[in-house]
Formats: sequence, C-alpha cells, structure tokens
Amino acid sequence: MTFPKQVRLVEMSPRDGLQNEAGPMIATDIKTGLINRLADCGLNHIESASFVSPKWVPQMGDASDVMAGIKRKTGVRYSVLTPNLRGFENALAAGVDEVAVFAAASESFSQKNINCSIAESLERFQPVMEAAKKHHIPVRGYVSTVLGCPYEGDIAPEQVANVARELADMGCYEISLGDTIGVGTPLKAKRMLEAVTTQVPIERLAAHFHDTYGQALANLYAVLAEGVGVIDASVAGLGGCPYAKGASGNVATEDVLYLLNGLGISTGVDLDNLVATGEWISSQLNRHNGSKVGQALQR
Amino acid sequence: MTFPKQVRLVEMSPRDGLQNEAGPMIATDIKTGLINRLADCGLNHIESASFVSPKWVPQMGDASDVMAGIKRKTGVRYSVLTPNLRGFENALAAGVDEVAVFAAASESFSQKNINCSIAESLERFQPVMEAAKKHHIPVRGYVSTVLGCPYEGDIAPEQVANVARELADMGCYEISLGDTIGVGTPLKAKRMLEAVTTQVPIERLAAHFHDTYGQALANLYAVLAEGVGVIDASVAGLGGCPYAKGASGNVATEDVLYLLNGLGISTGVDLDNLVATGEWISSQLNRHNGSKVGQALQR
Repeated sequence: MTFPKQVRLVEMSPRDGLQNEAGPMIATDIKTGLINRLADCGLNHIESASFVSPKWVPQMGDASDVMAGIKRKTGVRYSVLTPNLRGFENALAAGVDEVAVFAAASESFSQKNINCSIAESLERFQPVMEAAKKHHIPVRGYVSTVLGCPYEGDIAPEQVANVARELADMGCYEISLGDTIGVGTPLKAKRMLEAVTTQVPIERLAAHFHDTYGQALANLYAVLAEGVGVIDASVAGLGGCPYAKGASGNVATEDVLYLLNGLGISTGVDLDNLVATGEWISSQLNRHNGSKVGQALQR
Repeated sequence: MTFPKQVRLVEMSPRDGLQNEAGPMIATDIKTGLINRLADCGLNHIESASFVSPKWVPQMGDASDVMAGIKRKTGVRYSVLTPNLRGFENALAAGVDEVAVFAAASESFSQKNINCSIAESLERFQPVMEAAKKHHIPVRGYVSTVLGCPYEGDIAPEQVANVARELADMGCYEISLGDTIGVGTPLKAKRMLEAVTTQVPIERLAAHFHDTYGQALANLYAVLAEGVGVIDASVAGLGGCPYAKGASGNVATEDVLYLLNGLGISTGVDLDNLVATGEWISSQLNRHNGSKVGQALQR
C-alpha cells in the first residue's frame, strides 16, 4: 500500500452536482454563493459550470453569469466543462482557469449520451484541445462508465485504458476516471486502475466515483492504496443518478474528507466549514443532505 | 491481502435495528414476518430479539412472542441478546439457538450505557456463561465502541483486545467488534484488528461496523483484506444512531452483500430477495430505506 501524503479534492457540486437538479433554474447567486463558500473551505479546484447548449442542460444556462459573479480567490482553479469549440470560446471569454472534456469508455453510453462513437467524440475535442493549447488553458479529460455501463454492463479495463491514453495523448494533463453509475466494487476498481496505469502514469489520474450503490468510499480506499492522489467529489452528495430514480450520485466531499483525515492524508480543506456549506446548499435547494458525515455532524 | 472465500452475514435488523425504533410498539407479526423473510433470503444467522427488561427497551418487550411466532427454518441460527441470567432463562424457555452478551471497550460508555464498569459487566455475564454452558447454548460476545466512544473519543486498540480476550476466555465462541458510533476509518479499523488478533484468533472475530459517517464499507473492506470472515449488518440499514439524531446506524446488509458479491466472496444470500425484504420492512415501518443498493435497485 502506497497511500499518497496529500490529495487534491476536485469539487464537482456546482457542475456535476447541480446540472442534474430538476425543477426551476437555480438562481445564479446561489451557484456563486456555493462556489465562494467552497473556496473558503480550502478547496482549490472547483468545477464551476458547464458551457454546453442550454437546450441540452438548461440548469447550466447561466454559466457566463456564474463565472462573472464568483469572487475569485487566489490559488483556486475555477474549471468548466466545454464539450465543443463554441463552449470553449464562451468559457475563455468568461475567464475560466481550466476546461474539461468528457468521453465514455462504453460505446453504447457514448452513443446514447452524446450521440456519437467514442472515436468521433475524441475527434470533436481536437479543436478544443488546439484552442486551449493556443491560450495556455489546461484541459482535464473525463472518462465515464469506467466500472460499468447502464447499457452494456461490464467494461473491459483495457478499453478504459485506451480511452484514457487517447485523452492523455491529445494533451489532457489529467484523466478523471468516472464510475458514472456507481456500480464498481474495490477489487474491480483496483484492476481497472492497474490497466490504466500501464498507459497513463498514476500521477495524471483522478478517481471520480459515484456512490449509487454505497461503494464509493471502499473503492476510493482501494485506489488510494495504489497511490491515486486526486479525487472528485460533490458537497452534500449533490447530484442524483439519472439511471436510477431516487438513488444517489456523486460521493459526498464531506465523507471523502472524513476518510482522508482518518487516513492521515492532508487536503487543506476544513471539515467543519465544509459540513456547514453542505447544510447551507441543502437548505437552499430544499434537498436532503446526501452526506452521512453532514447528517452526523449537523447541529 | 487474504480475503476469505466465504463470509457469514449475521443479520441484526430484528434486534439492533428495531430496538432503537421510536414510536409505538411494532406489531409482533411484523417482526416475525421480517425474520421469516430474512431466513428465506439465505441468511442463516439472525439476531431475532433481546431478552432485556421492557423498562429499558420497550420495543423488545415481546421477545418471547417473537420467538414463538417465527417459522423455524432448518440451518438457521436464531440468536438473542441476554444481558443477565433472567434474560437467559426466558430466552432458553423461548427455545433460542444462541445467546449474546454485550460489553464495552470504553469505561465511560460502559458506565453511561449499562451503569457499571467493564469489569463489573463481565462479572455479571458469568452466570449467563455458566447457564449457557450447562444447556449447550453457544454465546456470542459483543464489544462496543471499538473505534471510538461518544464520551471519551479514541479507544486504545489494546483495550479492545483485552476486553475481547476476556470474553473469549469466559467462553464466547465468537467476538463481534462494534464500531458503535461509526466513527472509524479503514487504517484505524485495521490497526484495531491487528491488536485484537494478538489475543483472539481471527477465526473467532466478527466486524460489526455502523455507517454513521459513511465509512462502514471502506472499513469492512480493510478488515476483509485481513481475513475477517463474519460481518454483522442490518437490512435497509434499520436502526438509527442514538448519539447523532437523524444519522444512520447499522450498515445495510444489501450494501455489504453487494460489496461481497463484487469481491467474489460467497454468502449464500440472494441479493434481489434481500432488496425486496428491505423494501418491505421500510414500507411496513413507513421509514426511509437506508440501503443505497436498495434505493438503486428498487422497482
């Protein structure tokens, strides 16, 4: 076991969390309030919005306003999702620090989710990669369905490794490995990681595990033991699972932080402040607090 | 890592789960219905009731009726908690297969929970142990607060090991190590286990981890990797945490089973049937289903 001494937490709630919220548009100042509070907790990498057509993700329609409304904190990276060149250009105009692109490890998921093959999706990212390079904007790559797909079930670890390598070769500085539907278990996660590290060094990998089946922390513990040093999470477990109604999605940042604190791994993030932020956003959205640590520590 | 090939799941919901349910007395036929359904899922060890004064635990006041109402299934052990000789005698009259006694690893918890020191509590169990031996009834021992105490915080692993050894020396065939308030994390759980196994062989140990801080599955994964082969859990996560209002208590059996299935560890328990049982009891009690697997797979 070679646990990292420190872990970078990448906060997903403003994007991956809120994008799935049903109901009316969440007010921009709630979104910026959330992002500012997260930065004040010590989180230094916050995925803040998605520059995608509001036709597809209406909840992210105010991405430029969100970026304009944030109180920028020194040392914090405010990143956004940019699926295409138009999104990238809007993001650039909004002054983002970093962008991200999103591919799938499963052909069926790619077809049903973004209506093209994996290879086609990678081609579409080329103009984004080139423009980002020109403007010195770092690009993060997501690979989804790395531990299972809602349409085809098991995904071969080698397939995940291939997509991760392609994103790395295209210039993504970091590849975030997503268990999109939360079906993984620890040894499966470990084996997937072993396959990917034959293609991409572990220093360039992040774990993005959903908690739909309650396995996320066990899976994270397994890949932490292999040396993964970057973890994606969402305060209060914000973000549901579109593939299982009423089920949970993103693992809660509070629960991940509690785990890391217990393992003696430093993050620079303050747990009490984070729990308060989780309570605040849950109450703003009139939503159940999806963090068990948040539930246990709430006043 | 030396994962066991198979794990015995000890189902806690009828006792540790229901004993904390507030509100009116749950009907006896709901309790027996739950136990019968659990047995039909393939669970072969079900802690079915507590023979304790109804003054202290009113919800367990119908323990004899529960035992009389169960449809006994061959190969299933129906065990009960018996804190004293009177409880043991009533349990014996009710025809239980096995009994259990309950000690704490924390002096403060022992004082506040059962109003005596750890040493005094062990003395009180002596008559139970003797009577059980005479009647050839196996006795299981619980140690609570093995990873932390609500009153004194950290508990020394050596202290847990001492209490576990005393219970083993008194004749308990198995010692169940309880993270009563769910505060543990995996390396802490591993270190506690390492201390205990210097005193009691791992074949006689069980993990009884609560999920109050969402860490239970990660902790279970850590001790499974050390070879622990018995796990206590509660369907639908039944049972709250008296030390954190609104927080969760017992780890859900469905979530543990999903983990074990993913690790290729056999249990003889059917997941679909277990999920249906979790849904059934949650609906009978008009209670949120505390299992994430249950939430994800519910129809």
